Amino acid sequence: MTNQTRIAIYGYGNLGRGVELAIRQNPDMRLVAFFTRRDPAALTTLSPDVPVYHADELTARAAEIDVLILCGGSARDLPVQSPACARHFNIVDSFDTHARIPEHFAAVDAAAQEGGHVALISAGWDPGMFSLMRLLGSCILPEGRDYTFWGRGVSQGHSDAIRRIEGVVDARQYTVPVEAALESVRAGENPTLTARQKHTRECFVVAQEGADLKRIEREIVTMPNYFDEYDTTVTFITMEEMKRDHAALPHGGFVLRTGVTGSDGQTPQMIEYGLKLGSNPEFTACVLLCCARAVARMHREGMKGCKTIFDVPPAYFSPKSGEELRRTLL
Amino acid sequence: MTNQTRIAIYGYGNLGRGVELAIRQNPDMRLVAFFTRRDPAALTTLSPDVPVYHADELTARAAEIDVLILCGGSARDLPVQSPACARHFNIVDSFDTHARIPEHFAAVDAAAQEGGHVALISAGWDPGMFSLMRLLGSCILPEGRDYTFWGRGVSQGHSDAIRRIEGVVDARQYTVPVEAALESVRAGENPTLTARQKHTRECFVVAQEGADLKRIEREIVTMPNYFDEYDTTVTFITMEEMKRDHAALPHGGFVLRTGVTGSDGQTPQMIEYGLKLGSNPEFTACVLLCCARAVARMHREGMKGCKTIFDVPPAYFSPKSGEELRRTLL
Repeated sequence: MTNQTRIAIYGYGNLGRGVELAIRQNPDMRLVAFFTRRDPAALTTLSPDVPVYHADELTARAAEIDVLILCGGSARDLPVQSPACARHFNIVDSFDTHARIPEHFAAVDAAAQEGGHVALISAGWDPGMFSLMRLLGSCILPEGRDYTFWGRGVSQGHSDAIRRIEGVVDARQYTVPVEAALESVRAGENPTLTARQKHTRECFVVAQEGADLKRIEREIVTMPNYFDEYDTTVTFITMEEMKRDHAALPHGGFVLRTGVTGSDGQTPQMIEYGLKLGSNPEFTACVLLCCARAVARMHREGMKGCKTIFDVPPAYFSPKSGEELRRTLL
Repeated sequence: MTNQTRIAIYGYGNLGRGVELAIRQNPDMRLVAFFTRRDPAALTTLSPDVPVYHADELTARAAEIDVLILCGGSARDLPVQSPACARHFNIVDSFDTHARIPEHFAAVDAAAQEGGHVALISAGWDPGMFSLMRLLGSCILPEGRDYTFWGRGVSQGHSDAIRRIEGVVDARQYTVPVEAALESVRAGENPTLTARQKHTRECFVVAQEGADLKRIEREIVTMPNYFDEYDTTVTFITMEEMKRDHAALPHGGFVLRTGVTGSDGQTPQMIEYGLKLGSNPEFTACVLLCCARAVARMHREGMKGCKTIFDVPPAYFSPKSGEELRRTLL
């Protein structure tokens, strides 16, 4: 295929590998490079023909790349990498610290404007597709409420928090929506829900031999911010069970908008969007890649600066022409 | 509120009334006129302060209107009205004859380009929000299938078809998704489904006194295109029951995208979008109004020509600033 969009991946964890695989499902995209802060020689990817460069070489390679997809973490990597890279590349990132999006946007926008590039931040499913659903729901049904439920799925942050407890060898935390709460929303009851009423937390923990399990459990369920506001269950398992039953990273959730229309505000209307993901990072990667396609097109059209999923005409996510989209999907 | 968008409604049936009511929920919008092909003096709206003009006056009033929302039917009204009006106004329509969208687009685009206006066609929920979900699903999960189910809801076209049968006084037809088919899709079984396997049709019929009910039932269930490919049930009811139990126009449905990701294509991923609408025309009207907001903004930014929901940056549907949307909804 000619005119492929040349994609590079910066950071090679679960998300980077997801992007690598997603590119294989999109013939209009071509993977041209990996960048890593580790020793490139030590990095084994699934694409032996694609060169791995040290991150120090990023700027020197800019001319070979249409869009750079940043696959680092939101806590430490992206706040630095996204603005630095947006100066030299069109970029996509999955920055997901909701409260810090405005400052991240400002930093990336300044760099992208200066460099004449397009940067799309906070892509994925939340922020990302779920944000888009919250926006559409609030526009269509202005007199209404929205509800976001997450899970059943692995929360990386909560799993990490458990691993930091003394005596814990490994841990996996599942966030689970409370079925009764979800049903109440679906029934149009417009409930006001506390954190505890919306989600429960299920923890699977491998402890060191001889560790005080009662103490570990207590430290988990009382942990501020992470667990104290939820009903949390802790199940101790063996490392074998962990590897056998908890290797995948499933996730998902629901965005619901309930509202009313009509002369007396008595007509109930409901919108529900749900995701059931076999792999959170692989799905997120698919969204990032669609965004990379959109970014490349926006750049070709002369745009610049920082964008979010709210700014992208949906047709830009597709490799198909407007005519074909109207004929086949409208 | 200053800088309100001035909306006019052309055609005053269920959809026109829905737009009239939706404007009351959106303080940035103002209803400035109704247009009708009937005698304006004979039209009683819910907004006695808003003038009703004959359609002949449309062109003369163009300067008073930012966006004209066309609320006529797709069979006879919109193919003529939309191109004619797009020459003089920014317009939104809900043209829903899927097979004829390309030619409708071409006719409206030519008129809008010539007049320097923006026209958004085929807005609503299908075509409209469902189309958007089909597009997003196919972009995110290119190796996958999509499924659209409609209902439970009233099909106006099928109800009308029954009313044309001799001996029928009134009729209401509900399209109902087959639960087993929906569950099979949700279970990731990727079924291939016939029309009969996806939907059933429930008909409620008021017959003339003394009419041959067996003949009416036979004529319904064997009617080509409308019923012969479906499992159809016919229930005869009284006019009282019709008025009491079937006055509302509920509808809804589901768009599902099932796909796979990963190195071996073995990771299942599923996206589901569902609508449960107390009133089909009132919800459609809400979507049209969001589109009118977007059209007004696109026109202010100097765009022209025919657009669809695929071409609109989602932020344009909202009265809020990009900064506020990022802070509150992303």
